[in-house]
Amino acid sequence: MGTVEELLKINEELRNKLEELTKKNHAARSKIDEMSSQVVDSNPYSRLMALKKMGIVKNYEQIRTYCVAVVGVGGVGSVAAEMLTRCGIGKLLLFDYDKVELANMNRLFFQPHQSGLSKVEAAAETLRNINPDVNITTFNYNITTVDNFENFQSALLTQGLSGGPVDLVLSCVDNFEARLTINTVCNESDLNWFESGVAENAISGHIQFIEPGRTACFACVPPLIVASNIDEKTLKRDGVCAASLPTTMAIVAGFLVQNALKYLLKFGDVANYLGYSALNDFFPTMSLKPNKNCDDNFCRKRQEEKLGKVEEKVRQEIEEEGPVHEDNEWGISLVDESVIDEKETTIAASGIAFAYTVPTEGQKETQGTSGTSKEVSLEELMAQMKAI
Amino acid sequence: MGTVEELLKINEELRNKLEELTKKNHAARSKIDEMSSQVVDSNPYSRLMALKKMGIVKNYEQIRTYCVAVVGVGGVGSVAAEMLTRCGIGKLLLFDYDKVELANMNRLFFQPHQSGLSKVEAAAETLRNINPDVNITTFNYNITTVDNFENFQSALLTQGLSGGPVDLVLSCVDNFEARLTINTVCNESDLNWFESGVAENAISGHIQFIEPGRTACFACVPPLIVASNIDEKTLKRDGVCAASLPTTMAIVAGFLVQNALKYLLKFGDVANYLGYSALNDFFPTMSLKPNKNCDDNFCRKRQEEKLGKVEEKVRQEIEEEGPVHEDNEWGISLVDESVIDEKETTIAASGIAFAYTVPTEGQKETQGTSGTSKEVSLEELMAQMKAI
Repeated sequence: MGTVEELLKINEELRNKLEELTKKNHAARSKIDEMSSQVVDSNPYSRLMALKKMGIVKNYEQIRTYCVAVVGVGGVGSVAAEMLTRCGIGKLLLFDYDKVELANMNRLFFQPHQSGLSKVEAAAETLRNINPDVNITTFNYNITTVDNFENFQSALLTQGLSGGPVDLVLSCVDNFEARLTINTVCNESDLNWFESGVAENAISGHIQFIEPGRTACFACVPPLIVASNIDEKTLKRDGVCAASLPTTMAIVAGFLVQNALKYLLKFGDVANYLGYSALNDFFPTMSLKPNKNCDDNFCRKRQEEKLGKVEEKVRQEIEEEGPVHEDNEWGISLVDESVIDEKETTIAASGIAFAYTVPTEGQKETQGTSGTSKEVSLEELMAQMKAI
Repeated sequence: MGTVEELLKINEELRNKLEELTKKNHAARSKIDEMSSQVVDSNPYSRLMALKKMGIVKNYEQIRTYCVAVVGVGGVGSVAAEMLTRCGIGKLLLFDYDKVELANMNRLFFQPHQSGLSKVEAAAETLRNINPDVNITTFNYNITTVDNFENFQSALLTQGLSGGPVDLVLSCVDNFEARLTINTVCNESDLNWFESGVAENAISGHIQFIEPGRTACFACVPPLIVASNIDEKTLKRDGVCAASLPTTMAIVAGFLVQNALKYLLKFGDVANYLGYSALNDFFPTMSLKPNKNCDDNFCRKRQEEKLGKVEEKVRQEIEEEGPVHEDNEWGISLVDESVIDEKETTIAASGIAFAYTVPTEGQKETQGTSGTSKEVSLEELMAQMKAI
């Protein structure tokens, strides 16, 4: 025990150190009311707003009006959430029920000191420090349980920025069941979403855009791993210690968020399916049409609704303006409409393998479609793959 | 001023808070002597070592024997350094002379509280926390000044893990001068390197592998931006506030480190040139041969040396074993050898634009070559681009 003077000195030293560390652990910037294009070192948005000057995005500020749900905050989801946060997205919903482990340190984002913390809570803290302008809400539960199905659906439908539905859902989960849950909710609630996945051998991955009724849903056809040299043994199985690489995960997260930005901010072409095979730098792309015999009732319902809307829109446009121009609201042309009308699913080609095993009867039906139906763009796919 | 007892109580509270924050700011794990394949939550290497079980990498532990130099720790370099750190690379050299600014927050890695710190120091602290097993050395200077040229060259030649040269150099710089400096040093010292770049409109990028004398160096032909819809106005210029996106930067960093891993750990095919165009998800790849009239003396010298070695190797193999098989040490076949013999450079095709302006006479010569020489694989390029 020392004198009062000695203690006061120690006290002051401790206070100073504490202040220093506290500063380190909290956002070094306050909230910013409006995104500015001003080119100064202190503006975190200058290089995003420059996308307007470059002629890429018309109204970048609009990103603040969107809410995106990230389901699964692992190797892909955490990086996707960080990208959206740094881009200044309006609101993020984070879903996961896992904890951070040292075994996750071979991917970007989480740090060793966060081991043991809930992934959503640890992610939210980091993301709020990175950009305090983003509204982040966390949901620490398993979406695949019966009880949580409704909670999950309700969150997606009411937690958007104006109390309505979210603007987009990003699936970054690592199992079939969770993907099917997201698919069911998005079909029923007519929400657009991106599915993503990385193979358990760490060297391939994909993203897929799903617009219920207009593109193939997850039940129409299981997502595909398209690659020349990948055999079934390399696909994701339960109970196996999957390999993973920070490179593949970040590339898939990059494709996911880049296409999400193109979708939300309306620039470029949103990929329907984009694959990545690391060994030979091979990037298959394709369009997948919905399956008219899809097991999911709501998928079939959306197909009928949207086919009706498309037909009406096309009829109106022809009456009013002559032939459909390329940039109509539905992004379709007369040729596309006839293709949609066929409602056939394209699911098989040489070198393409299923990424997941579809359980029960769904599998038989889907595979049956593949074997017997008219494969609309099979030749297209084959040509594309041969060319690479 | 309070009593001794009061002060002691405050003192203890301050100590507790300080301990908590200190824990948060330091590595939550100690060093690990040997990489283990054990599948437990506490093993940060389990999912990397699983690459062996998956049949992708023969000897993953070898990553600890390599030293990689990352030149430029910005939007691409910082993420590349983090990926290599999480993969457990043996040693990293970080070169930059810039400071962290809030204007960098639209890319991954740096956080607002690091504003004002030197990029290499801030990066090294974060990376050491992420993986204390990696040996990280920082170089806080501009490599393009006359004085630092020798420092830079000496670091690359003596800072490898056994006191010799580094195993690979990753160029993540944002200007022509720095790329040319790296090129000069790597040609003179016969070091293999990857060049990388992102366009100032943020929506395209590329990586290029350069093996002095065997592939085109940076002076043989300026790196190309290959894209269907990009015009010259979108290319990097001085004094313009470049746009950037965390997505494009992370994708390019992912391609860079993925190909670096393939090169170091000997799996898959290392891309010679891999481009990325975000608007249409277009990924051009190509091979670029060295230019026998290259301005760089050391490039021409390496060409002569290696051409000699290739010829001798091929002659020996034919004598000993008959025709050259595909997996010979040099990765070449008889056909390749004849192509190398021509030593012509492929540099022009429709839709391909130069990413940088080559200054002075170098430019004229190179462009002249493009216009008048036999363009070895032009048709191949054209076919590849048309197919996409």
